[in-house]
Amino acid sequence: MLTFHIDNTSNTPIYQQIYSYIRMEIESGNLKSGERLPSKRAFASHMNISVVTVETAYGQLLSEGYIRSKAGSGFYVEDYNISHEVEEIPDISIDCADVKYDFGTSSADTSLFPFSVWAKLSRATLNEKTTDLLNSCDFRGIKPLREEIAQYLHRFRGMEVSPDQIIVGAGSEYLLGLIIQLLGRDMAYGVENPGYRRIYDIFSISASRVFPVPMDEKGASISAISGFGINVIHVTPSHHFPLGITMPIVRRQELLQWTYSKHERYIIEDDCDCEFCYNGRPAPALQSLDKQERVIYLNTFTRTLAPSIRIGYMVLPEHLAEKFRSRLGFYSCTVPVFEQYTLAKFMAEGHFERHINRIKRVYRQRRDTLINCIKNSPLSNHSVISGEDAGLHIVIKVMNGMPQNELVSSALKAGIKIHGLTEYYSFPDSNIPENSLVVGFSGIDSEQIEKVFNLLF
Amino acid sequence: MLTFHIDNTSNTPIYQQIYSYIRMEIESGNLKSGERLPSKRAFASHMNISVVTVETAYGQLLSEGYIRSKAGSGFYVEDYNISHEVEEIPDISIDCADVKYDFGTSSADTSLFPFSVWAKLSRATLNEKTTDLLNSCDFRGIKPLREEIAQYLHRFRGMEVSPDQIIVGAGSEYLLGLIIQLLGRDMAYGVENPGYRRIYDIFSISASRVFPVPMDEKGASISAISGFGINVIHVTPSHHFPLGITMPIVRRQELLQWTYSKHERYIIEDDCDCEFCYNGRPAPALQSLDKQERVIYLNTFTRTLAPSIRIGYMVLPEHLAEKFRSRLGFYSCTVPVFEQYTLAKFMAEGHFERHINRIKRVYRQRRDTLINCIKNSPLSNHSVISGEDAGLHIVIKVMNGMPQNELVSSALKAGIKIHGLTEYYSFPDSNIPENSLVVGFSGIDSEQIEKVFNLLF
Repeated sequence: MLTFHIDNTSNTPIYQQIYSYIRMEIESGNLKSGERLPSKRAFASHMNISVVTVETAYGQLLSEGYIRSKAGSGFYVEDYNISHEVEEIPDISIDCADVKYDFGTSSADTSLFPFSVWAKLSRATLNEKTTDLLNSCDFRGIKPLREEIAQYLHRFRGMEVSPDQIIVGAGSEYLLGLIIQLLGRDMAYGVENPGYRRIYDIFSISASRVFPVPMDEKGASISAISGFGINVIHVTPSHHFPLGITMPIVRRQELLQWTYSKHERYIIEDDCDCEFCYNGRPAPALQSLDKQERVIYLNTFTRTLAPSIRIGYMVLPEHLAEKFRSRLGFYSCTVPVFEQYTLAKFMAEGHFERHINRIKRVYRQRRDTLINCIKNSPLSNHSVISGEDAGLHIVIKVMNGMPQNELVSSALKAGIKIHGLTEYYSFPDSNIPENSLVVGFSGIDSEQIEKVFNLLF
Repeated sequence: MLTFHIDNTSNTPIYQQIYSYIRMEIESGNLKSGERLPSKRAFASHMNISVVTVETAYGQLLSEGYIRSKAGSGFYVEDYNISHEVEEIPDISIDCADVKYDFGTSSADTSLFPFSVWAKLSRATLNEKTTDLLNSCDFRGIKPLREEIAQYLHRFRGMEVSPDQIIVGAGSEYLLGLIIQLLGRDMAYGVENPGYRRIYDIFSISASRVFPVPMDEKGASISAISGFGINVIHVTPSHHFPLGITMPIVRRQELLQWTYSKHERYIIEDDCDCEFCYNGRPAPALQSLDKQERVIYLNTFTRTLAPSIRIGYMVLPEHLAEKFRSRLGFYSCTVPVFEQYTLAKFMAEGHFERHINRIKRVYRQRRDTLINCIKNSPLSNHSVISGEDAGLHIVIKVMNGMPQNELVSSALKAGIKIHGLTEYYSFPDSNIPENSLVVGFSGIDSEQIEKVFNLLF
């Protein structure tokens, strides 16, 4: 039986001590691939601790792919030769200097940004607002901007929110940090796997427990969420990154029911890319379906305007908005007042919606070009396209016998940046497809797509 | 003997469970004022836990003023009727609408800001930088700004730092959050008491253990820092807020020696107000005295430029700069690229130093006016002024028999905002002076000072 010394005086929770110990034993080879772990009950009784503690430790090992479970049989050590973590953050792993054509997913086409309008409004702000620009503002951001955001969410997303529920901050990453401070770092957080690696990093630095949640065809797996004992789940329902799944209404309702069934459960709805929905209106936001104040809605202007514009916002349920005010209201708003006024003006004068409509047309055309290229290529009968109804990328499952890694590296030799789907898995998963590509079109125009697509296959 | 159930399965560290239990017993009145707590050794043996764990719990209770220690005799419950926490954050507690004259400490005189120069440079940035303004920048901030900051620190503070060690971010509060993520939330952090309440709030939300450290006449007490087992201490050596102490070189060296004597000890040197030193150059920064990479230097432009300009920066020792890059380099810089270019230009063209010199002259004059008013008032022989060599406030110990609270409330009735020193104590301290005022002059001009000073006493 596994035995080690539990340190009751340590600040590290016991489940974490068990997790670290077993992980070390696996990594050092003391626990061999295929070896059976003691049952949860036996281990708990042997160590004189509760079964729940062992369960939490096993759950983390399971979710990170160190062990696997066989129904009715128990837990076994995974083959540790499986690469445990993706070594590089996607989009940074390729040397930018060599890339001539960019099918990456974090690229941005800054030529689409209406710079002259923005500059004009910036100048007007400088002329009109003088003293307002120097004094610090409400901790939630200036009211005119929060009012514009509330109206936009009403028109575009059918959401009924008060400007008082909105918190403006320097980008989604910063706002996620605030959410962890608000809900507490001892909550068990879940993030989608595959997903944005950064999201996982933020939670794992600031919170005690983070579990990568596997996806099924409808989105984050409800059974996994329940199994890990998660309190707060971060999801991208409008267009899952990178699988491209738009979460169907039934899963949205299941997720909400999951939160309702226990006190202090929340959903963080990261609605980025909801603006780029190519078939009619986007599905209703979880926030607008929620009847019990369990959804925190998060979005950003970074993706719709420009990467350098670090403005995001979140909509808190009323009781959390009040908790934020009393516990975190001492924080100053992190976005300069100048940028806030300029953006408020940009929205109030209709430029934002016009801009969204314009870039949506451009991106739709690029997507159509890309799909046409596939249909007219030798891949035509040897591929499956998914995630094409929304967002700024599609997923191609390539079935011509070429594995993903070969496709990615031969593309790179031709100066083409493209990502394999496996790159987006922060943790091993039994269902990782080995022959799928994630093809972004936010950093490449239609002409270039046509020009280089044939070089790919 | 105190007895309760230690929950080994909980994620809450045991010392924290003990702390919470005893605190609850005190607050509920089960443990009466003056009652003796069991000795650390007896309690540890009774509960079958380590003495260190009990020590940590007692240390926290002690530092928060729930218990007191008598040399050679043990620990006793404090009189709980002592207000445990300052109920309101200073500067927000007074209804701004009624204030006509503002001796507050967080006020800002935005009329001093060279708005037309700033607006001109903003326009130039918009004209010149177009695409640079849209792409995201280095996670540390744009290089031209970090170069300007490094040069400024060299000229003004004699510090030799590389732009690679500098991280630009949306204000000191945000940067403190990053520091906690960088050093780890399980470190024991110390903050000065009295001090900025916000600093204490930030640490207590994001870190597991925070200890308010009492001050002696040279600054944060070294014996208290050592006694609490602190790893990282936050200090304001240039001009302590609010006591106004400029930390003498001997205490600076003692602090550095304290860090050198153990692995993983750090000082966060919050150098705000170093720009406002009225007697020659400011004392050397701890950062420039440090030979072993133990000082994180922090400063902000919010205080020197305007409250709405959320730009701060920190200088990390080289090994921490490298750790930041590898662990937190995925975070995007939170300051808009536009503001960064404008500020870089403002510094490069010499406006920043000219601006500092100008406002320093203005503030010095206000300080002189204030001191003259005191000397020519009935207080002349019944008061002691301190903290007048630097910063934007002084401390007056009033010895005419009027207690602080009466002074503050009668001032408020006359439309004058002024703070009592006790407001800045986040926690009880045996030496809180009951008759001192903290008088700020960043939000009131010389003419007004002369006009209203006589209304005060």
